[in-house]
Amino acid sequence: MAHDALLADFRAGRKAALARAISVVENHRAGFDVLLGAMHPALGRARRIGLTGPPGAGKSTITTCLTRHYRRQGLTVGIVCVDPTSPFTGGALLGDRIRMEDVALDPGVYIRSLATRGSLGGLSTATREVCDVLDAFGTDRVLIETVGVGQSELDVARTADSSLVILVPESGDSIQTLKAGLMEIADVFAVNKADRPGADRLRTEIELMLGMRPGAAAAPSAGHHGVDLSRNNLARQVREAAQRDEARWTPPVLRTIGTEEQGITELAEALDRHFEYLETSGQLRARRRTRLRERVVDVVEEKTRQRLWADVGTTAWLEARLPQLETGAATPFEIADALLARSADLLSGRST
Amino acid sequence: MAHDALLADFRAGRKAALARAISVVENHRAGFDVLLGAMHPALGRARRIGLTGPPGAGKSTITTCLTRHYRRQGLTVGIVCVDPTSPFTGGALLGDRIRMEDVALDPGVYIRSLATRGSLGGLSTATREVCDVLDAFGTDRVLIETVGVGQSELDVARTADSSLVILVPESGDSIQTLKAGLMEIADVFAVNKADRPGADRLRTEIELMLGMRPGAAAAPSAGHHGVDLSRNNLARQVREAAQRDEARWTPPVLRTIGTEEQGITELAEALDRHFEYLETSGQLRARRRTRLRERVVDVVEEKTRQRLWADVGTTAWLEARLPQLETGAATPFEIADALLARSADLLSGRST
Repeated sequence: MAHDALLADFRAGRKAALARAISVVENHRAGFDVLLGAMHPALGRARRIGLTGPPGAGKSTITTCLTRHYRRQGLTVGIVCVDPTSPFTGGALLGDRIRMEDVALDPGVYIRSLATRGSLGGLSTATREVCDVLDAFGTDRVLIETVGVGQSELDVARTADSSLVILVPESGDSIQTLKAGLMEIADVFAVNKADRPGADRLRTEIELMLGMRPGAAAAPSAGHHGVDLSRNNLARQVREAAQRDEARWTPPVLRTIGTEEQGITELAEALDRHFEYLETSGQLRARRRTRLRERVVDVVEEKTRQRLWADVGTTAWLEARLPQLETGAATPFEIADALLARSADLLSGRST
Repeated sequence: MAHDALLADFRAGRKAALARAISVVENHRAGFDVLLGAMHPALGRARRIGLTGPPGAGKSTITTCLTRHYRRQGLTVGIVCVDPTSPFTGGALLGDRIRMEDVALDPGVYIRSLATRGSLGGLSTATREVCDVLDAFGTDRVLIETVGVGQSELDVARTADSSLVILVPESGDSIQTLKAGLMEIADVFAVNKADRPGADRLRTEIELMLGMRPGAAAAPSAGHHGVDLSRNNLARQVREAAQRDEARWTPPVLRTIGTEEQGITELAEALDRHFEYLETSGQLRARRRTRLRERVVDVVEEKTRQRLWADVGTTAWLEARLPQLETGAATPFEIADALLARSADLLSGRST
């Protein structure tokens, strides 16, 4: 096969081969599927950690801090920076990368930036594939940092084992507008720049939203840290604590000051605890199974697209029918049905 | 068919039927494709105008102003607000809608908000479909307002005949970071809030980026409005002006103060001129042909997804193969190939 030599170098742990393999996969060059397929049995070692949050929250700084922490533990780190390329932003990226320079020079660290590839759906696919390559290479921790905060970033975050959401005290004003999507994906919260005013308030607000402080906002009898000590609430809290311990994970809300490396050890420990929870609860297997299922679905959909639209006969057939569409003699649904009806061999792979 | 009564009401111009038809289409309820198909011959009347720009640029205000302008001309207006639902924003929307209240009460205006539907690709499809319904209803102008500025908004903007990009003097600092995508889609620029400092500078910067002021930045001999009067440049400008007039459209950069309805007539005239250019140059037919082609591609891809993943046999078959994926005995590519090989009848529509 085309990438035999590359694969041999890759398996020998050569970093140049890692870079080349990622390029082949990222750009879907010829043979990328065979290459990824050959790596498939080696998957499952890396812990994938997604980092998301609003612009200016300090995602790159926390990424850098966590990387240094893991390197001190002797672990190798892959960093995947995902930028869905808003046409109105982008200036901050270079500065962030410069701050990362010291970890970038570390041979135990591999950094890769991913920009938009075709559709946004394609970006989470690309992220998953690049993480797979890093995983197969034997990377211990893969940090997936998303630049923005839109739907596409949430899709990207879902490709991780653990999702870290980073907020800053300035986010406090908008915390009420945080939509359900973010709360669903967050496994650990970091309130970064925690030396600024409003950090405690933000932390309390997040905990209230998570239901960790039942009644704290409304109850005048709330004690230290807003815990309501009335009987009913105590009973409920005991019940909830038991549920927490046994069945579900309540995202911890931690304080960090990334620029001073404060709170990083605690953050890494929280991520370790979350990973242990994933393992013991069976969630890890479930999440990774979901990822594999989505992977097949992605590949199937990309293959159908390729087989249809790379076929000259199909596109010519469609082009010849556009005048009917323009006059209204045929509808897009009729043309689509007819196109699929004539494409059975093409789609099933019989004619290629 | 299921929507016969609805279609009759729709064709009779009843606004309640318009609202119901959009709901059926937006949520892809049963029979939506037959409904859209029945509307297909009526398409092509509406001019579709996309409005995009950074948050706070005044898109809703300009949308409202343009709507009032068109209503004074006796034209009916559809407004489609597209919000790709960032989890960190969203607070501004309600206020914008309140500002629109006076046009919202006008029976000649129809407003619809679209939030994320499934994938982001799905959002531009949904936008196109809702605009089609408005078009088939006989709406004269359809204004497509996007809330954010990411890739998905650019995709949405591409579904319009004309794209209006709205900036404010405050955008000036980031104009250098505007990516190519925006310049590609902009047919008309509005510098809104033009009474604020920096409006002229922003306008000049946009014109420089558009190549409308060749050499103006570097040439010390630049005359009034930065036009370089040296011989070489004059020759080039004549050549460029001729090219502009004959073959291509140079996006005009207009000043508006939306809150005071200033510059709106000029803006509407620029949009009219752009539409005339589209018609006379053949671009309108080309753009609409592209839209029809993309429409078929969308429908084909959605149909393949539906036929595959709504089929219990297929999903059960995939589920049974996940253990092989987990152990590494099979790769996602092999499973995908096998899945497509067994799905010829399903995909071609023979088995349904």
